[in-house]
Amino acid sequence: MSTEISKIGVLTSGGDSPGMNAAIRSVVRTCAFHKIDCVGIYRGYQGLIEGDFKELNARSVKNIINRGGTFLKSARSDDFRTKEGREKAYQNLLEHEVDALVIIGGDGSFTGGMIFNEEFGFPVIGIPGTIDNDIFGTKSTLGYDTALNTVVEAIDRIRDTASSHNRLFFVEVMGRDAGHIALNTGVGAGAEEILIPEENLGLERMLESLERSEASGKTSSIVVVAEGDKSGKNVFELAEYVEENLPGYDIRVSVLGHIQRGGAPSCYDRVLASRMGVKAVESLLEGKSNYMVGINNDEMLLTPLDKAVKGKTEINKELLRVSDIMTT
Amino acid sequence: MSTEISKIGVLTSGGDSPGMNAAIRSVVRTCAFHKIDCVGIYRGYQGLIEGDFKELNARSVKNIINRGGTFLKSARSDDFRTKEGREKAYQNLLEHEVDALVIIGGDGSFTGGMIFNEEFGFPVIGIPGTIDNDIFGTKSTLGYDTALNTVVEAIDRIRDTASSHNRLFFVEVMGRDAGHIALNTGVGAGAEEILIPEENLGLERMLESLERSEASGKTSSIVVVAEGDKSGKNVFELAEYVEENLPGYDIRVSVLGHIQRGGAPSCYDRVLASRMGVKAVESLLEGKSNYMVGINNDEMLLTPLDKAVKGKTEINKELLRVSDIMTT
Amino acid sequence: MSTEISKIGVLTSGGDSPGMNAAIRSVVRTCAFHKIDCVGIYRGYQGLIEGDFKELNARSVKNIINRGGTFLKSARSDDFRTKEGREKAYQNLLEHEVDALVIIGGDGSFTGGMIFNEEFGFPVIGIPGTIDNDIFGTKSTLGYDTALNTVVEAIDRIRDTASSHNRLFFVEVMGRDAGHIALNTGVGAGAEEILIPEENLGLERMLESLERSEASGKTSSIVVVAEGDKSGKNVFELAEYVEENLPGYDIRVSVLGHIQRGGAPSCYDRVLASRMGVKAVESLLEGKSNYMVGINNDEMLLTPLDKAVKGKTEINKELLRVSDIMTT
Amino acid sequence: MSTEISKIGVLTSGGDSPGMNAAIRSVVRTCAFHKIDCVGIYRGYQGLIEGDFKELNARSVKNIINRGGTFLKSARSDDFRTKEGREKAYQNLLEHEVDALVIIGGDGSFTGGMIFNEEFGFPVIGIPGTIDNDIFGTKSTLGYDTALNTVVEAIDRIRDTASSHNRLFFVEVMGRDAGHIALNTGVGAGAEEILIPEENLGLERMLESLERSEASGKTSSIVVVAEGDKSGKNVFELAEYVEENLPGYDIRVSVLGHIQRGGAPSCYDRVLASRMGVKAVESLLEGKSNYMVGINNDEMLLTPLDKAVKGKTEINKELLRVSDIMTT
Repeated sequence: MSTEISKIGVLTSGGDSPGMNAAIRSVVRTCAFHKIDCVGIYRGYQGLIEGDFKELNARSVKNIINRGGTFLKSARSDDFRTKEGREKAYQNLLEHEVDALVIIGGDGSFTGGMIFNEEFGFPVIGIPGTIDNDIFGTKSTLGYDTALNTVVEAIDRIRDTASSHNRLFFVEVMGRDAGHIALNTGVGAGAEEILIPEENLGLERMLESLERSEASGKTSSIVVVAEGDKSGKNVFELAEYVEENLPGYDIRVSVLGHIQRGGAPSCYDRVLASRMGVKAVESLLEGKSNYMVGINNDEMLLTPLDKAVKGKTEINKELLRVSDIMTT
Repeated sequence: MSTEISKIGVLTSGGDSPGMNAAIRSVVRTCAFHKIDCVGIYRGYQGLIEGDFKELNARSVKNIINRGGTFLKSARSDDFRTKEGREKAYQNLLEHEVDALVIIGGDGSFTGGMIFNEEFGFPVIGIPGTIDNDIFGTKSTLGYDTALNTVVEAIDRIRDTASSHNRLFFVEVMGRDAGHIALNTGVGAGAEEILIPEENLGLERMLESLERSEASGKTSSIVVVAEGDKSGKNVFELAEYVEENLPGYDIRVSVLGHIQRGGAPSCYDRVLASRMGVKAVESLLEGKSNYMVGINNDEMLLTPLDKAVKGKTEINKELLRVSDIMTT
Repeated sequence: MSTEISKIGVLTSGGDSPGMNAAIRSVVRTCAFHKIDCVGIYRGYQGLIEGDFKELNARSVKNIINRGGTFLKSARSDDFRTKEGREKAYQNLLEHEVDALVIIGGDGSFTGGMIFNEEFGFPVIGIPGTIDNDIFGTKSTLGYDTALNTVVEAIDRIRDTASSHNRLFFVEVMGRDAGHIALNTGVGAGAEEILIPEENLGLERMLESLERSEASGKTSSIVVVAEGDKSGKNVFELAEYVEENLPGYDIRVSVLGHIQRGGAPSCYDRVLASRMGVKAVESLLEGKSNYMVGINNDEMLLTPLDKAVKGKTEINKELLRVSDIMTT
Repeated sequence: MSTEISKIGVLTSGGDSPGMNAAIRSVVRTCAFHKIDCVGIYRGYQGLIEGDFKELNARSVKNIINRGGTFLKSARSDDFRTKEGREKAYQNLLEHEVDALVIIGGDGSFTGGMIFNEEFGFPVIGIPGTIDNDIFGTKSTLGYDTALNTVVEAIDRIRDTASSHNRLFFVEVMGRDAGHIALNTGVGAGAEEILIPEENLGLERMLESLERSEASGKTSSIVVVAEGDKSGKNVFELAEYVEENLPGYDIRVSVLGHIQRGGAPSCYDRVLASRMGVKAVESLLEGKSNYMVGINNDEMLLTPLDKAVKGKTEINKELLRVSDIMTT
């Protein structure tokens, strides 16, 4: 591999997700493997501006493959939205002789990376790290698979209570713009109904479905609601609405919240992170820039950052039908 | 063991807790061991009134020791608060030739049991099943140990995000009247502050503690708040209050909610449930009634139901001091 | 969907795997959805011969989506290897008016199904249930993803001890003919070396790698060994061999064994099971037979049973390279 | 608290156990709270001899309360068995101005500490860290509760397979000299038989019990065997013995091994570790020496090291009876 890149920087930005540490580890070790230097940049773009850099070698990243969160930390950076901030960031990279950046984060982070690349011609490659799976160009984002497991385990616990008390639970899961988590965990946890941003079937349908379910002999039910559900009601209002219209039900609400972001990554996410880190570094070494690393059909691929940001991974409509059948 | 009891009924009442199934299993098998019959009563006191009875033998309870919730289900019963309801319940027990009852539940359930015993002289023994550990006469209630583990695992996940983003999290845990869960999980999860119903040190102290913690170099913190905290503010108001007074902090709130009640019981709770079931049945066979089974210093003991209901297990004040030291 | 199938039988055969219960549930509910009958056949082909049948409706399969194992149980059947046995099985199906079979199992089970189909023209569809992922025609077999998580969690625990004591652990994982589990968990758990049946790089290479690793400053290591490893030594002999040749190492062996087969299925396996059950039943209703249901690139597909049995899912060679880079 | 101790050293020795990191954290923070210095000694007594010391402050131990293993590492030390070794260790402590030692480990570690104390009059306090619970003077050793949960979770997984296949599993758990783990997990996992070092009821009894169990309609069983079982046969020989005598059974063996030592500590172990660390440091500050910290009846207490080493925590015989009843 011939290249003029001899030092790569890596940072995490945006909301943390399980597998970020495994991805950092992979970036660092791939650099070591190719005998180039690697520098960790703390607190995302803000640390880039403030010069919060630290050299990392293969041993710096031991025993972190299984840790949630990101040891490089993440932060919002209003400064990076200004030309001055980005100028400062660029000067820091020059000073530290960093030749290219790996950015681990979501679409906001990638947009920042694209602007930076445009302004300074600085090579960047993105690794999609977010539990929401809402980034185009990869079947799976880092942390998504782990979050699915965390959510079904949580709903399994809630079901213990739901079926002990013949209750109906509304469970809110993450997903402002995308219903991937809600749809998959809804099927995986055997939910009666699943409300997602991509599809608004109306509140009437939900009532009918719950009535049918009660009539069929079901004594407890779970409704999984994505944060970004388009019913026009939040999860508490939904619960009240059903309470008013189906007074027979004993209803409770559970908002799973931040537990969904943390925890040890699943095997899938660890392997994915390892593969993505290798692909990111080697793509930079091959002279590529402005791409996001992704996985499709078990193969690594590159997608231009602007496509990754603008596009959208569609939900699998088949799953909606599977869910309907499962709630027979 | 000479006794005239030849059939025992068992029911679960009040909020479910991990270990209830293990306790039912133990009651059923202890009956089988002593060659007496056992009948499961579904949906607590309501099922007692409605005659929702089912004979259970040793094989009926296989493979349930590790399941959360209660397969006998639990329910509120307004009817049991009426004399007519209890009269009907008594007639059902006579009809089914049930000679004694094991009641698995919390203090509300025990109060019902006491009244029933008083009115009809019917033998009852209680097993304390609640995650809150707020029942006098036992060091541990069934499900409490499991709930502690569920909570610390959840906070471990939240800490991944908290330390990745240098955030302050307020985490609300169960405990309306008792701070046992908050205090133990606060120490176990390394919380900066713990707010419990038993102690109101004032909001000033919390602010001071958080300021001191920031000054000492801590970049993220967890505050564990019991539902029944006496600060006069709920967890969202607390978060706002700190946000206003310590604007440097990036604050989030997480209400753990119903996930705390479910899940497979810990080994401790399974063993405790098994021991309590044996003790409950054998106490009835020995002619005892109106007691609650408990554990203290690794030994089974009996406490009169009225004492169990009126008393209160004090929190371990030493833990407050340990928590202070740990947040140095 | 026009069809003459009005009753479908479902059985599990071969080694159990997490997700089998979820698949049975899906088969039963898809039958209910299409208003046809479903009958569960207990203990695999042996129960088929012995007439161990039970009608299942949508409610029969509640609360099992998250349970490991198979409630229909599985068993070896020498009788089914005989013409007489199969003849008896066929008569039972006729008697119970079963029109088609869904067989959940591995390649041995599918071979039985093919012969049965050939002899009696009886419609069969297979669902691949095995943790080994060694069946052609599907990217993932049911239970494989769950087993990967079980194994990395187990190795995470072992690593706690390995790094506390600067030890080298040999960990044997399942996989007689296929290295999928070893390769993926090896990468996911950060193993120093991975020994799989598909590749025999020689013991020399392992020694060199371990020496290099020690020289690089690593103080503890994990070597993941598939059961079917072709080094000519079992895991205990491997450990001895290294002990003799690299006396500096403090070596331990752990055989993970049967814990790998059990446990609650991951979200991925639950969704996969639900989709496979739908596909299996609807394929039968469309008049298809002698196929196995599989998943590729997130889509359901059918593969003729004989191809599924004879073929082999290749390991992803890229992962070997990723593993090498990660152990830099 | 008046004292002349101004610097305390802490080390971990012997087999690691979950909670050791939490105990180190507690020692370090209690020192900081009392404004005295703390030094971590790496690799147990060997590091003491080699001068492998590192100053630790309150921030050095952040985010470790939930980690298995010991970041100070542990090691055997033949050198510490020699007078010369211990002399060197003493000189290192003088050089680093360490005034007292907290030793976290098992009875071997405590014996070393006692000799050291005797020879040099050096103040030592022990914290019992071992999963086996085989140390006198404490109801619970650090890591024991966590190990119980790890074992029951593993057996739950095995039971999935056992009941799917109507099999009998022999599961070997840790415990060379003590049956605490076997006895409690046997009850907690619903084992048919439990074989422990403290009681040898003979192989005949086991056969009878298994026959009775089969006759009673049980189709699968678990036998939990402590490593130190006194039946005269190891777990594989036991399995063969039963296979020969009860040919109806399909038998498997699982040796849980090292997974029992690792993993995140339970809430109980984290709280216990925190309390023990406080008690250890404050006891030294009060001028006490040659004691082990323990817990009994939810209170901290001190036991002379020689008693801790020579004594033995008896198993709870009541549990044997409970186990008998549960297998009715």
